[in-house]
Amino acid sequence: MMSVSELAAFFAQAFPVGQVERDHDIVEIKPGSVLLQFEPDAASLRPGGIVSGPTQMGLADRAAYAVILAHIGPVAMAVTSNLNISFLRPVANRRFHAQATLLKLGRRLATVDVRLWQDSPAEVLAQATVTYAIPA
Amino acid sequence: MMSVSELAAFFAQAFPVGQVERDHDIVEIKPGSVLLQFEPDAASLRPGGIVSGPTQMGLADRAAYAVILAHIGPVAMAVTSNLNISFLRPVANRRFHAQATLLKLGRRLATVDVRLWQDSPAEVLAQATVTYAIPA
Amino acid sequence: MMSVSELAAFFAQAFPVGQVERDHDIVEIKPGSVLLQFEPDAASLRPGGIVSGPTQMGLADRAAYAVILAHIGPVAMAVTSNLNISFLRPVANRRFHAQATLLKLGRRLATVDVRLWQDSPAEVLAQATVTYAIPA
Amino acid sequence: MMSVSELAAFFAQAFPVGQVERDHDIVEIKPGSVLLQFEPDAASLRPGGIVSGPTQMGLADRAAYAVILAHIGPVAMAVTSNLNISFLRPVANRRFHAQATLLKLGRRLATVDVRLWQDSPAEVLAQATVTYAIPA
Repeated sequence: MMSVSELAAFFAQAFPVGQVERDHDIVEIKPGSVLLQFEPDAASLRPGGIVSGPTQMGLADRAAYAVILAHIGPVAMAVTSNLNISFLRPVANRRFHAQATLLKLGRRLATVDVRLWQDSPAEVLAQATVTYAIPA
Repeated sequence: MMSVSELAAFFAQAFPVGQVERDHDIVEIKPGSVLLQFEPDAASLRPGGIVSGPTQMGLADRAAYAVILAHIGPVAMAVTSNLNISFLRPVANRRFHAQATLLKLGRRLATVDVRLWQDSPAEVLAQATVTYAIPA
Repeated sequence: MMSVSELAAFFAQAFPVGQVERDHDIVEIKPGSVLLQFEPDAASLRPGGIVSGPTQMGLADRAAYAVILAHIGPVAMAVTSNLNISFLRPVANRRFHAQATLLKLGRRLATVDVRLWQDSPAEVLAQATVTYAIPA
Repeated sequence: MMSVSELAAFFAQAFPVGQVERDHDIVEIKPGSVLLQFEPDAASLRPGGIVSGPTQMGLADRAAYAVILAHIGPVAMAVTSNLNISFLRPVANRRFHAQATLLKLGRRLATVDVRLWQDSPAEVLAQATVTYAIPA
C-alpha cells in the first residue's frame, strides 16, 4: 500500500495547483479506505456561502481515486467510468472530509463508497458511489 | 420561459466569476431543453490535457439547473439532490456542449437528462441524469 | 446485427419462463437501439394496481442487454455492472415499452440509455442508464 | 419505531404472495437500519444458477422501503424516486441478506444505503443507494 507521503507526492506532481483534485490533504490511508480533508476557498462556494456541488463531486472523485491508487500503485490512467452522488445536507464553509472505502477492487473495475462529512462521520453530507476503469 | 439573456443575467448576478458554473455560454433555450457551451481553460484540465471529471460534472449540473430555471423562473433555492454521470469518451481541450432535456418537471422534483458532446450531438462524451429538489 | 427472431430465440433458450427477463416481446432492432414491449400480469403489480419498481427495473435491464447482444452477438456472459433508474411517472397496468439506445459500445464496457413509456415515447415513465461489463 | 412483527404484518397485507417484495424475512430493526434476508427460488435465478439482477434490485428496493417505514410508520404511498445499484460479485443460489441504513430521513426525501451480502457483511455483493419521495 502507498503511504500518505507517497500518494501526496504523486498528486502534487501529476495535478496542477488550484483544483480541489489537488488542494486537499490526505489524512489517513488504511487497508480498504482513505480519508481526505479539504478547506474550501472562495472558488468552492455557491450563493449562500455553502460548498458547491462541483466541489463536493471533485473531492468525492478524488477520494475514490486515492483509495484505488493507494492499493494498486500510481496508475495514472485509471479513469472514472461512473459517479453517482446524493446530496443530503448543506456543506458549510469550513473544512470537510471525504472518507473513501473500497467496495470492490477488481482487475478491470473498482467501486468505491465515498461519504462527505464535516462535524461527525455519522452525519453524512453527501454519499457517492464511484466506479473506476483500471487499464489492463 | 426565460430568455437566454434573462437566464444569463441571473447566473452572472448569482454566481462568482471563475467557475464552470458561471463561465459558460447559453446557446439556446427551447421548450424542454437548454444548450450550453463551455471553453475549457487550464483549471479545467487534468493530466494528459483532457477536460477533468469535475469540470464535466460542473457543466452537467449547471445545464440541468439552467433548463429547470428556464421553465420555472429564477428560483435560486432549487438544489441538486442526485447526480449520476457516465463518462464515455475523453473530452478534448476545446469547446464542448451540454444539452439538457427535461425528463420530468414535477412540483417537488425535476429530473433532467444531460449529454456532453463536442463534435456531434450523436457522439455522446458523457451522460448525466440529474434530479433537483424544488422548494415549496 | 442479430435479427428479432434470432434474439428472441436466444432469450427463450437462455431464460426460464415466468420472468420479466423473458416474457417480453422484441418489437424492433435498429442500429444503436432496440424496442421491447411487456404486458404486465398480477406478479408485475404493486398495491394500487400500478407496475412495480422491480418489474420496471427488470425490463430496463433486459432492454439494455438486448441492445448490446443485438450488436455483439449472443455473449451470455455480459453482466450488468451498474444500473441507475429514475422513476418519473406511474406505469399503468397495461402494455408498456422499453426503448434502449447505445450510448457507447466499448470493448470492455457498454453503456445504454433506457426509457420506459406507455402512451407516447415523449412521455417518459422511467429513465435508466445501464452499464454492462463485456467479457474479454 | 415499528417492530419486526408490525412491519411484517404490513407487508403481508399490502403485497401479494410470490414476489421478492413480499417473500423475505425481516431479521432485525434497529435505529437507522433494517436487515432483511431472502431465500432464492427458481424464479430468482438467471442462467448459471446465480441470483438475477432484478431479484437483487427488488430486495434492495424493499430493504430501503422497510427502513423508511420502520421509522415513519406504514405510509404506503412512499415511492422510489431513484435507485442506483452496483453489482459487485455474483450472488449464489442460497439465502442472502440486505442491510439498509438511513443516510438521511428528510421530510420529503429519504435516502438509504443498501448492501447485499451472503457470507459476511464485509463481502459486499451489491451496493445500492435508494431515494424515496415521502408524501406530504
